[in-house]
Amino acid sequence: MSEIIDRIHDLPTLRDALREFAEARDWRPYHTPKNLAMAMIVEAAELVEHFQWATPEESMALPPAKLLEVREEVADTLIYLVELADALDIDLIAAARDKIAKNAIKYPAPR
Amino acid sequence: MSEIIDRIHDLPTLRDALREFAEARDWRPYHTPKNLAMAMIVEAAELVEHFQWATPEESMALPPAKLLEVREEVADTLIYLVELADALDIDLIAAARDKIAKNAIKYPAPR
Amino acid sequence: MSEIIDRIHDLPTLRDALREFAEARDWRPYHTPKNLAMAMIVEAAELVEHFQWATPEESMALPPAKLLEVREEVADTLIYLVELADALDIDLIAAARDKIAKNAIKYPAPR
Amino acid sequence: MSEIIDRIHDLPTLRDALREFAEARDWRPYHTPKNLAMAMIVEAAELVEHFQWATPEESMALPPAKLLEVREEVADTLIYLVELADALDIDLIAAARDKIAKNAIKYPAPR
Repeated sequence: MSEIIDRIHDLPTLRDALREFAEARDWRPYHTPKNLAMAMIVEAAELVEHFQWATPEESMALPPAKLLEVREEVADTLIYLVELADALDIDLIAAARDKIAKNAIKYPAPR
Repeated sequence: MSEIIDRIHDLPTLRDALREFAEARDWRPYHTPKNLAMAMIVEAAELVEHFQWATPEESMALPPAKLLEVREEVADTLIYLVELADALDIDLIAAARDKIAKNAIKYPAPR
Repeated sequence: MSEIIDRIHDLPTLRDALREFAEARDWRPYHTPKNLAMAMIVEAAELVEHFQWATPEESMALPPAKLLEVREEVADTLIYLVELADALDIDLIAAARDKIAKNAIKYPAPR
Repeated sequence: MSEIIDRIHDLPTLRDALREFAEARDWRPYHTPKNLAMAMIVEAAELVEHFQWATPEESMALPPAKLLEVREEVADTLIYLVELADALDIDLIAAARDKIAKNAIKYPAPR
């Protein structure tokens, strides 16, 4: 397993490592899109929790220890998002590209 | 702008396009980590909404039209997650790799 | 139905109206605690959405039209919370009272 | 304080106790609607967490220990919802009644 973790360097290798990780632990039956969406929003909320009482300014200058905790919640959110996209056979990067192209029409940049 | 969108093919190019997109629209002042975390969980919830009344089985076999909507919400969630990580100077892939290595110790795979 | 709605004046009468509302529409099979928890967080996020780009000050002085929208999201969140508590046979007021008593010990007031 | 906690028996007395609780701890400056909305969704997510890997059936028959934990998260969500409504001067019961009346028109009951 440690080899496949070391090889993570982009979204496809992250997805592959997560597949192997879940399979080795027999977690696949739990990984329905419904459940993964729930797990993802739970991690997103753990991220939000770090900012709930912060002023906008404080949120831009987190103490190092807090930043490390936030980094873990960011990671957890990404992990479930990658697993959810994988379960639905969605290419995350292509989906984001298409959405930004759509947003560029919806919110044209001023000149 | 369309050129930089076309060039999106991984997380770093996605981050770069999002930076340019936000700057061209003067959205940067709104993009505090606190606000981005809120925007991200809102998108995550729009994703959850598609699954709230679905059975686990239905969530695994979405009709094509619904899958397209889900794909957009997945994209929106990723977009804000990338912007949040960028605002905090967090490398998403490195953070996920470190978290999986930690999880591998916490949840050892059975033999 | 309009009679039972008119009679809503506290949490128990709200719960009773919601029971009747769901039964009249055959929604009960969908109202598992799992699904209701999802529906509730979706409404909570629609509430959060109104505040995501607001400064703390703006969030304290919403324009009347926006306040009306927020009022509806607050209502939706309460509705699902009441339905979830009902599905689990939890007395909301007693639960809140017990939690505040616990918090009073955890966070003693300074003198 | 313990007296006012003992007197909680409906939403208005809950709101009054929460006001006193926050004031005694100088928490009021943190209780902007923006921050309270964030705190509420964080608690809602802690509730969701209890159900994320559960089957619909399991979610309907929680073990007693888990039900007690869920009861606390339900309480926390209600507490922040009451504080948010109070900060915005929203009458929770009236808001829910109005929303149900609206829903009754939007989703008419079959005969």
